[in-house]
Amino acid sequence: MTENAEKGLLPAGLQDVLAPLAAHESANVERLIACFQSHSYDRVKPPLLEFEEALLTGAGAALAGQTFRLMDPVSQRMMGLRADMTPQVARIATSRLKNAPRPLRLCYGGQVLQVRGSQLRPERQFAQAGVELIGPSEEASDAEVILLAIDSLTALGVAELSVDLNLPPLVGSLAADLGLAADQVLSLRQALDRKDSAAVARLAGAQAALFHALLQSAGPAEAALAALKKLALPGGAMLEVERLASVVDLIRAAAPQARLTIDPVEHRGFEYQTGISFILFAKGVRGELGRGGRYQATGPGGAQESSTGFTLYMDTVLRAIPAPQPQRRIFLPFGTPAAKARELRDAGWATLAGLTAGEGAESEAQRLGCSHLLRSDAIIEIKD
Amino acid sequence: MTENAEKGLLPAGLQDVLAPLAAHESANVERLIACFQSHSYDRVKPPLLEFEEALLTGAGAALAGQTFRLMDPVSQRMMGLRADMTPQVARIATSRLKNAPRPLRLCYGGQVLQVRGSQLRPERQFAQAGVELIGPSEEASDAEVILLAIDSLTALGVAELSVDLNLPPLVGSLAADLGLAADQVLSLRQALDRKDSAAVARLAGAQAALFHALLQSAGPAEAALAALKKLALPGGAMLEVERLASVVDLIRAAAPQARLTIDPVEHRGFEYQTGISFILFAKGVRGELGRGGRYQATGPGGAQESSTGFTLYMDTVLRAIPAPQPQRRIFLPFGTPAAKARELRDAGWATLAGLTAGEGAESEAQRLGCSHLLRSDAIIEIKD
Repeated sequence: MTENAEKGLLPAGLQDVLAPLAAHESANVERLIACFQSHSYDRVKPPLLEFEEALLTGAGAALAGQTFRLMDPVSQRMMGLRADMTPQVARIATSRLKNAPRPLRLCYGGQVLQVRGSQLRPERQFAQAGVELIGPSEEASDAEVILLAIDSLTALGVAELSVDLNLPPLVGSLAADLGLAADQVLSLRQALDRKDSAAVARLAGAQAALFHALLQSAGPAEAALAALKKLALPGGAMLEVERLASVVDLIRAAAPQARLTIDPVEHRGFEYQTGISFILFAKGVRGELGRGGRYQATGPGGAQESSTGFTLYMDTVLRAIPAPQPQRRIFLPFGTPAAKARELRDAGWATLAGLTAGEGAESEAQRLGCSHLLRSDAIIEIKD
Repeated sequence: MTENAEKGLLPAGLQDVLAPLAAHESANVERLIACFQSHSYDRVKPPLLEFEEALLTGAGAALAGQTFRLMDPVSQRMMGLRADMTPQVARIATSRLKNAPRPLRLCYGGQVLQVRGSQLRPERQFAQAGVELIGPSEEASDAEVILLAIDSLTALGVAELSVDLNLPPLVGSLAADLGLAADQVLSLRQALDRKDSAAVARLAGAQAALFHALLQSAGPAEAALAALKKLALPGGAMLEVERLASVVDLIRAAAPQARLTIDPVEHRGFEYQTGISFILFAKGVRGELGRGGRYQATGPGGAQESSTGFTLYMDTVLRAIPAPQPQRRIFLPFGTPAAKARELRDAGWATLAGLTAGEGAESEAQRLGCSHLLRSDAIIEIKD
């Protein structure tokens, strides 16, 4: 490889997106946002760069290792390039919009950058879109965001969408009620996340049967809830299960056909979640389409607000929806009147204007990827 | 100010954009891109970060001082955060798309970041949208991009748009033909850019009358061209004027009402332009809406392609178009059937769902900024 050729190369995990995928990504982000807005979620746009201490507080702290940092020559302070938009939106809700009426509904879409790609997502830049519902703690607010995730992804054409509902605080609250030691809880959580029944049995001691039953209860929502309700759960844990049942009822009332599963012990990536959480999948598509759940939005003064929301990962979402349709493109020979060109565009055509007189219009049209050609005011299809 | 409150502050020139402006910006970028695509410009999306040597070559070199730089921990090489998308699009055209048929039509839209704001544009992050037409040198290609700039901005609602046409290489080619010394040319250029007739007269020596006449010729396109054609310009300069006249004719044929002016000596910001260039203004709006012109796109192997294009600055564009219309938002009392809510959204309403039963629906609707309320299936307007 020559030095010059190498100059054209991009850093690993960063790429040029070309036609038709670049337009496809933007169009689908905008369709999602339009859906969020139709549910009265107001779009906000935080900056790509912020002071690092603002970006990396609260839930943002988990992203410290994934955040590019650089010095601001103006303020001489360190800034971070956002690795996730959700902490930014929570910051907006709890600072600039702290006096806006609650429930506060916000949505967003934009690019994020991460220091390292993962095996599942080698890209270091990708688009996010999502919503936050700040303030309300009602079951209806959990149901609203889950239904909005289903509605918006279905509108994009995601087939066989499924929602895996989770209760990340359940294991902790159970362990507290049952008097398990803190180090025991951590190992138990890890065993539960690995779905390792043998380790769970060993680590849960006298409660082995209960935790084994929790692990076994995972599956389609109604069956999982029935199994969970039969367990001898302490009061706090049973309240969480009952709340989840109510939320499932609310979702069913609005979306009877939704594919809902429950995994009550799933905890990975939900370190900051304080209630009902969920992961979105599409059958046959690698990776998560997105995830969300209940958390405490923390304001600059430390005030906390119960909130919920979700984020969609556009790289995965685009793998789950139909490919973009090719544009109908018509070649206009040099000298075609501007009014005629406009009329064709108004009718939905993309027009491609010839720049020189006398060129062989049909071969030129074909060479430039046009599907059609204007000849003496007639639209001619180009044969391959 | 407390330490906590300070944490909410953003670096100078970086801001949170809230409703309704965040949605307004995105919607208008997408409208511009849709217009570009309707003229067969294919959208591309370069990454926010690149290796600095790729970002800062060619026309990008002018942006070195405005580009945030950071180390890539993966490759241990320096990267830059793009300060302008146009060098990236030229890179794509001349490297990844070097074998795509010419003329190559590309468009783009996205965020850029600059190290320092200017007095005219204090923002350090703003959105760009634009097109590049790579390969053709015909007059029709100059006219095509200028007409596309007019068409796309007019479609957004820019009133009283004007296009100032420039010939940045003119002064240099004239000076060469007339045998002026290099240091004399630089001072002369600066005097011409300042419109300083006295300095021009002093610096141009024997050619004072000619340069004075050039300066005086600036104004509405047809009058300027008539004045320029009367001058005793050397052959090369006269060819440039004749080419500009042909381009004006092509623009007039398609857009008879366009406000076209000519300033033949304007050179600021056009250091890399090699032919007809232009700046877009709207009456009464501070700053440029955008600018463009002819340049040499340089591939990694050094091969050059005559190209033209333009970039629009969305912050200025948004000041030149009508403010966003408020959304029609309807409050749905808790328990409104999902099918009814969907029917309202399909009819263009934004629905806002009540989350608790028994709340005073009208006061709740009003508190949350709804213009309407659903009551017993009837749409009620809320009185202030």
